[in-house]
Amino acid sequence: GGDVPAIKKPCVEQKLELSYSDRAKLPNIHPLASKLLKVMEEKQSNLCVSADVTSSEELLQLADSLGPKICMLKTHVDILKDYTVAFNQKLLALAEKHNFLIFEDRKFADIGNTVKHQYEGGLYQISSWSHIVNAHAVPGPGVVKGLRAVGKPLGRGCLLIAQMSSQGSLATGEYTKAVLKMAEEQSDFVIGFICGSKITERPEFIHMTPGVQMQAGGDVLGQQYTTPEEVIHSKGSDVIIVGRGVLEAPDRLKAAESYRKSGWDAYAKRIGLCVQ
Amino acid sequence: GGDVPAIKKPCVEQKLELSYSDRAKLPNIHPLASKLLKVMEEKQSNLCVSADVTSSEELLQLADSLGPKICMLKTHVDILKDYTVAFNQKLLALAEKHNFLIFEDRKFADIGNTVKHQYEGGLYQISSWSHIVNAHAVPGPGVVKGLRAVGKPLGRGCLLIAQMSSQGSLATGEYTKAVLKMAEEQSDFVIGFICGSKITERPEFIHMTPGVQMQAGGDVLGQQYTTPEEVIHSKGSDVIIVGRGVLEAPDRLKAAESYRKSGWDAYAKRIGLCVQ
Repeated sequence: GGDVPAIKKPCVEQKLELSYSDRAKLPNIHPLASKLLKVMEEKQSNLCVSADVTSSEELLQLADSLGPKICMLKTHVDILKDYTVAFNQKLLALAEKHNFLIFEDRKFADIGNTVKHQYEGGLYQISSWSHIVNAHAVPGPGVVKGLRAVGKPLGRGCLLIAQMSSQGSLATGEYTKAVLKMAEEQSDFVIGFICGSKITERPEFIHMTPGVQMQAGGDVLGQQYTTPEEVIHSKGSDVIIVGRGVLEAPDRLKAAESYRKSGWDAYAKRIGLCVQ
Repeated sequence: GGDVPAIKKPCVEQKLELSYSDRAKLPNIHPLASKLLKVMEEKQSNLCVSADVTSSEELLQLADSLGPKICMLKTHVDILKDYTVAFNQKLLALAEKHNFLIFEDRKFADIGNTVKHQYEGGLYQISSWSHIVNAHAVPGPGVVKGLRAVGKPLGRGCLLIAQMSSQGSLATGEYTKAVLKMAEEQSDFVIGFICGSKITERPEFIHMTPGVQMQAGGDVLGQQYTTPEEVIHSKGSDVIIVGRGVLEAPDRLKAAESYRKSGWDAYAKRIGLCVQ
């Protein structure tokens, strides 16, 4: 829209790091990561909204109204009380209409043979409509192999959960290092990470951070919040994932625009671009 | 059945460890753990069959035919291609008929607020029919708190995944220790572990081990197999979880009986009872 601030030429002579669009053109980039980075640049948005609602109708309304502000919509299809197969097709149509990617936050975490079935089959047939899924690395590389067997031929991509925003998470230190190694070994399917901060300098990988709100804080079940500025500018992540910050706002569209702007401004500052 | 070997008096004067029925009577035992241990003793079975099939009808047939041989049936409801709400009720009726517990192997692995919805809501309403669920500890204690908020009032119980049978699993060492601590802190809802071997001497916790086959080996996606004797006698686990060993056998009932007998014999040997 007209209220999107224009990106001007670099403020400093020496570029601090690659822009989203530079990274989209890297020779070894996964096609889906490239697509996401292009969407982010085009829409000036590094905002992924977490659509944690339990009604399919409400989710589709959210996708339609917030679609122009986001690069990605994160879903939990298994909390919808009225899911039908028609839902997938409607959501995909909205993703096309508004140019965003769908990320089913399934957190696959089983052995390869089981996640293959969970990803492809059942009532949800996640692989048929979700561009991106994620997985825990705790089962070992077999979890990625199983998902890859299903998702790679469809052009899908996977994020590995390298860190979590919840209190007392065990995804730290050596665990996080092992996740990175697992991603590097299967980078034809793993496009990036769920993490609190950047964990690798390889620009082909996309870093996405949940637990983002305008004000730091937490909930009673251990969730902990960080701000968009902190996540994108200080921690070097690429995408902010915002749930309750948008969903519980009196005006969700206004809140989404506010997060989009904060996330984008922090990115512009990080790569040394002047924002008007 | 008449082919179940009778348990005789202890072979040695000094008892090596508590029997399942002794543990069922411990003052601090969780009621659901107590129930499971009683079922195991009554049916002389420490066999949990993993019903990894994609047809509801086939799953119900399995539950009905193998029901007499098992203490527990493990499900992946999200791989059923023809799931309906009626399925839950039919499965529960079979669990009553044959006196086994249902364990939906969901591997919850998200923040507390999300797993609450995933456990209680959506199409599957897992908390309404599955006696036992499991969770990964990687999100921190909030994952158990979230599940507990839903499951405790219903008398449900949870297993934490302390170790995995898949190659290169990250659930080892310090991770496993942290899982144990998490379980001890919420033992009013956590009744035991998914593990490769016994990880605590506290007899209130039940140890359950997947990846069991009559012959050691593995699959192409990283699964690794151990024998019933090894798991129950050498590793000190309580329950063997068998999937393909039964499902891919020419005669599933015969295979289940064979695993039941192997598991039970190994248990009898471990606690120093003579088997006829």
